[in-house]
Amino acid sequence: MKLRLFVSFILLTSCFAVFGQENQGSSVADKGLTKVSVMYPYAEGKTFNMQYYESTHMPMVAKFLGSNLVKYTIEKGLASGIPNQPLPFMAIGTFYVKNLSEYQAAIAPNRDAIRADFSNYTNITPIILVGEVVK
Amino acid sequence: MKLRLFVSFILLTSCFAVFGQENQGSSVADKGLTKVSVMYPYAEGKTFNMQYYESTHMPMVAKFLGSNLVKYTIEKGLASGIPNQPLPFMAIGTFYVKNLSEYQAAIAPNRDAIRADFSNYTNITPIILVGEVVK
Repeated sequence: MKLRLFVSFILLTSCFAVFGQENQGSSVADKGLTKVSVMYPYAEGKTFNMQYYESTHMPMVAKFLGSNLVKYTIEKGLASGIPNQPLPFMAIGTFYVKNLSEYQAAIAPNRDAIRADFSNYTNITPIILVGEVVK
Repeated sequence: MKLRLFVSFILLTSCFAVFGQENQGSSVADKGLTKVSVMYPYAEGKTFNMQYYESTHMPMVAKFLGSNLVKYTIEKGLASGIPNQPLPFMAIGTFYVKNLSEYQAAIAPNRDAIRADFSNYTNITPIILVGEVVK
């Protein structure tokens, strides 16, 4: 009986410990990861189909990346934060990976398939930022 | 005894349920939040003191934002993801907030203090993207 109480207590505290850590936000777990951000600059006449990007393009690329991919995010650009400035980017898709070389090795053989899919959702040539999660 | 077994089971499954949800990544919890990204473009002669930015500038701004701020992240730009292209951004600091109007109301009275601190860590004029977390 005492043992069972003890086990329940351990389970409960581990549960809160795990939950507590996760709850500190993704930044703790993400620190040190490599971010590859594919950024679509806004300009007059440029189009971007967010529905296709979210449902088809990003899942396709994510599949190529396998277990090296920790997560990916999608952002829709709404406005410039500075008054009277144009929207900087229409959309940004970001891959959080453990290892940049593995990312490059996974993308290389699929580059043509990825590029061929661009015209299905946009006429923008993206810029790509490779960065490191500091916080 | 049976009751206790049952309670242990419930505790354990709730624990995994919570952990499982959290483990889907921050994107689930972040969906719908507003992102304000302060982006520092790279150019020859531009400097950026990441240590000061992380330890002093970002915590100062975060304090102004109060409970509207869900989290903030910092990224250090390393390279362009496209060969032979210059680094697009030296750094990006991003605030994830619940409400854009509240963000603007909190920043307005502190804009001078924030701008005055720029010269302590950079000579870059940032661009600011307001976006929405799609995923």
